[in-house]
Amino acid sequence: MTQTVDLNADMGESYGAWKMGDDAALLDIVTSANVACGFHAGDWDVMAATMKAAAQKGVGIGAHPGFPDLHGFGRQRMNVATGSLQNLVRYQIGAARAMARAAGSSVRHLKLHGALANMASEDEVMAKVCYEAALDIAPDLIIMVLAGTAQQRAASALGCNVACEIFADRAYNDDATLVDRALPGAVIHDPDVAGRRMAEMVREGAIITESGKHIATRIDTICLHGDTPTAVRIASEVRRALLDNGVTLAQFDGQPV
Amino acid sequence: MTQTVDLNADMGESYGAWKMGDDAALLDIVTSANVACGFHAGDWDVMAATMKAAAQKGVGIGAHPGFPDLHGFGRQRMNVATGSLQNLVRYQIGAARAMARAAGSSVRHLKLHGALANMASEDEVMAKVCYEAALDIAPDLIIMVLAGTAQQRAASALGCNVACEIFADRAYNDDATLVDRALPGAVIHDPDVAGRRMAEMVREGAIITESGKHIATRIDTICLHGDTPTAVRIASEVRRALLDNGVTLAQFDGQPV
Amino acid sequence: MTQTVDLNADMGESYGAWKMGDDAALLDIVTSANVACGFHAGDWDVMAATMKAAAQKGVGIGAHPGFPDLHGFGRQRMNVATGSLQNLVRYQIGAARAMARAAGSSVRHLKLHGALANMASEDEVMAKVCYEAALDIAPDLIIMVLAGTAQQRAASALGCNVACEIFADRAYNDDATLVDRALPGAVIHDPDVAGRRMAEMVREGAIITESGKHIATRIDTICLHGDTPTAVRIASEVRRALLDNGVTLAQFDGQPV
Amino acid sequence: MTQTVDLNADMGESYGAWKMGDDAALLDIVTSANVACGFHAGDWDVMAATMKAAAQKGVGIGAHPGFPDLHGFGRQRMNVATGSLQNLVRYQIGAARAMARAAGSSVRHLKLHGALANMASEDEVMAKVCYEAALDIAPDLIIMVLAGTAQQRAASALGCNVACEIFADRAYNDDATLVDRALPGAVIHDPDVAGRRMAEMVREGAIITESGKHIATRIDTICLHGDTPTAVRIASEVRRALLDNGVTLAQFDGQPV
Repeated sequence: MTQTVDLNADMGESYGAWKMGDDAALLDIVTSANVACGFHAGDWDVMAATMKAAAQKGVGIGAHPGFPDLHGFGRQRMNVATGSLQNLVRYQIGAARAMARAAGSSVRHLKLHGALANMASEDEVMAKVCYEAALDIAPDLIIMVLAGTAQQRAASALGCNVACEIFADRAYNDDATLVDRALPGAVIHDPDVAGRRMAEMVREGAIITESGKHIATRIDTICLHGDTPTAVRIASEVRRALLDNGVTLAQFDGQPV
Repeated sequence: MTQTVDLNADMGESYGAWKMGDDAALLDIVTSANVACGFHAGDWDVMAATMKAAAQKGVGIGAHPGFPDLHGFGRQRMNVATGSLQNLVRYQIGAARAMARAAGSSVRHLKLHGALANMASEDEVMAKVCYEAALDIAPDLIIMVLAGTAQQRAASALGCNVACEIFADRAYNDDATLVDRALPGAVIHDPDVAGRRMAEMVREGAIITESGKHIATRIDTICLHGDTPTAVRIASEVRRALLDNGVTLAQFDGQPV
Repeated sequence: MTQTVDLNADMGESYGAWKMGDDAALLDIVTSANVACGFHAGDWDVMAATMKAAAQKGVGIGAHPGFPDLHGFGRQRMNVATGSLQNLVRYQIGAARAMARAAGSSVRHLKLHGALANMASEDEVMAKVCYEAALDIAPDLIIMVLAGTAQQRAASALGCNVACEIFADRAYNDDATLVDRALPGAVIHDPDVAGRRMAEMVREGAIITESGKHIATRIDTICLHGDTPTAVRIASEVRRALLDNGVTLAQFDGQPV
Repeated sequence: MTQTVDLNADMGESYGAWKMGDDAALLDIVTSANVACGFHAGDWDVMAATMKAAAQKGVGIGAHPGFPDLHGFGRQRMNVATGSLQNLVRYQIGAARAMARAAGSSVRHLKLHGALANMASEDEVMAKVCYEAALDIAPDLIIMVLAGTAQQRAASALGCNVACEIFADRAYNDDATLVDRALPGAVIHDPDVAGRRMAEMVREGAIITESGKHIATRIDTICLHGDTPTAVRIASEVRRALLDNGVTLAQFDGQPV
């Protein structure tokens, strides 16, 4: 039986005169693109160009909203009231939908960015608030969640379309959280290791932790990075390693979890 | 035969901790609200609150996009490439549509703001570019145009839904342009004068210039201002004067012009 | 023996087209002005106008730096690395100094704003980092501190020029912290009560808490608010009450504490 | 007799998470650095790091103020009132001076950026307004001007310290303006050609135009670019070619022109 998985990456993170990442290269690697919506990165022109290119390559388009924190790239944790959280998600989703429509496509999925994602992965209520706001605007949206976190629990409780995500280049603790970046081995730099590891997790339907523990999880998509030339090379090699290990790459179908 | 006209005003121009205008008072006066979309004024929370209040009062919601110029309130003329112009209109329309949907309503019309509006009133190609971008996203959108300007010609050429607008408090030159604010009599401060004048223009179906010339024009909506306590009082009295003169106030139907 | 105290208020908090507060009225009330530096509020034009007016009225000019958070008015707590904290204080102080010089005056004191101030009042190390950065640029600067907090301890340890501040309109707990705004009596709305209370605290050289406890404190300046018409009226009446109670109003001299 | 010239380049144009240019490489090439001041590019942290590195390499630090136009990188021409123009120059100079002081150095020169520079090179009154505002804050500042333009005339009329600048990689018309970038030959891509040409202009004390005309000009500094890997390589080779042609590289002394 063939295993199938999606590959996703953040894109459209340039802003005005500033370029970030190699989106052209990434679009030949991934099957889904998380497009920044102008709050933490991206702008109207970057969104238009990124979505047009994604549509041309058959890559699925996702809205990737973040906190209103351009200088901090959305990495600053912010204390935002519930109503305001919903408003900022809706605003960004709405903008993304219009840009996707103009690119002859549509927004297929949602993935939260940066501190907003981190906070939602720890706080099911906050995740639910964000997802409900998005689903109000686009009920068929597929919610991409960090597998095993409060994000997944929130999306599961909502019964909405879901894509469960694991990281290609990060080691996991036994409670399914990521190993702290400050610790040795937290980030996997060898693409072959990352590729084999992803193939194994997809085959097993489980996150395999540093200690070897298997945490059963639906795995729909793998997060790759493309913000440096090295990251793009690793992403490319992870893709190849997955294919070599008999995994089929295709967009997630988004069934509820 | 009864004359009918719409009253519109810019709203939702607060930003973060800064308040602007008395939207609550204006919503009891106008029949259509032009809601700032976050580029020159407004933010996700202001948009949500403004649209919710407008929906509750039965006031028609319009998207009011401007140049990306928060500090200059969108009044700075900018040299923007055609593609980018389309992108910034689409982005703002999309955001506005999502916010309106969350408020249980929808975006009924479009009105350009500030320097973007001024430039489009002088440049039919630029107006057309903006309107086409908006109509790509929302084909049924009613385009509010400054009567007698390049804005109207652009919308007419597109065959789209249109609302033709005149100003309650500004004197007109014989070519249908506004009398320069620096000249005496350019701005009408007496609400009774403004009200009687508007009633006459609506009845005549014409802009009546300072010299008394009648320029035949479809008049669908009258622009009021509400950014100061005085402006709100004038707006309120213009409304009363129109009613006293037998004019019915109702949202425009948007038929092509 | 005559008691002397300074009155201070935040000013220059308008931004672009948005007005905030009634600075003209406040300048007739206070002896020191805390001028926003463009990060959380204020801009180059607002700073220039505010400082010029302050200089003309003989009101002492202070730099009032905040976090880079325009939308949140600097009220969002931010996790900022030490070096970056120093850089953002220096940048704002430097800008303020240039604007004051152009206004024919100089920056006499520093007061931290919003979340930056709140965090520094709880964290002596953070307060020290901010103050040292400011003093690197302007060694004679008078550091305005919240009396009895980590701000005062930091400034005291640095041996720099200091002005100790209490609030006119806030009740105090027995540990010199402010009573939570959510509790009854936390905010004093009666200007006579506020004025008499301030006169008493200045005379006693102590913060007098809700329970009646006296916490000996040097009191150099009283913080007034002016962001609403009511606030300006209260500020004005507190001034009068202080004068009626025999307190002299004058700029603090800034001796170390 | 030895010819001496300064080499300058724009630096510190990164912003938050976005990197621009290879400042580390440029600092080994140039003798003066024009550091962005946070309006069109740069931020407090980028300024601090850039100035510290410049100070360590003995590179002269300049303030490089631009229009408040982050998204447009200061390239958008803006219609700004005289007073506001002065305020935005002062603010940025002041911030730059504080950052330079914290880096153990000082701001030695001023160079206008982008559209602000372009407008000032065409409009002597505007140039004078900007320079006067800067000199109010820092009377000894050396004003870097585009040789032969209204910038030079304005600085000359002020009698202030001046550094006259030519471009390494741009062809000149017979009226000392730059050949339009759209025309063939407008941009010089061959570093050897650029180097020899610069050596000749410095030796002759003249701008040598495309047609071969010599326009006598004091040449104090040559503008290099470093925003791409190619630009850095060209900058490096122009430096070498100048040295090979017997030109000494050193900071300008700024004598009035």
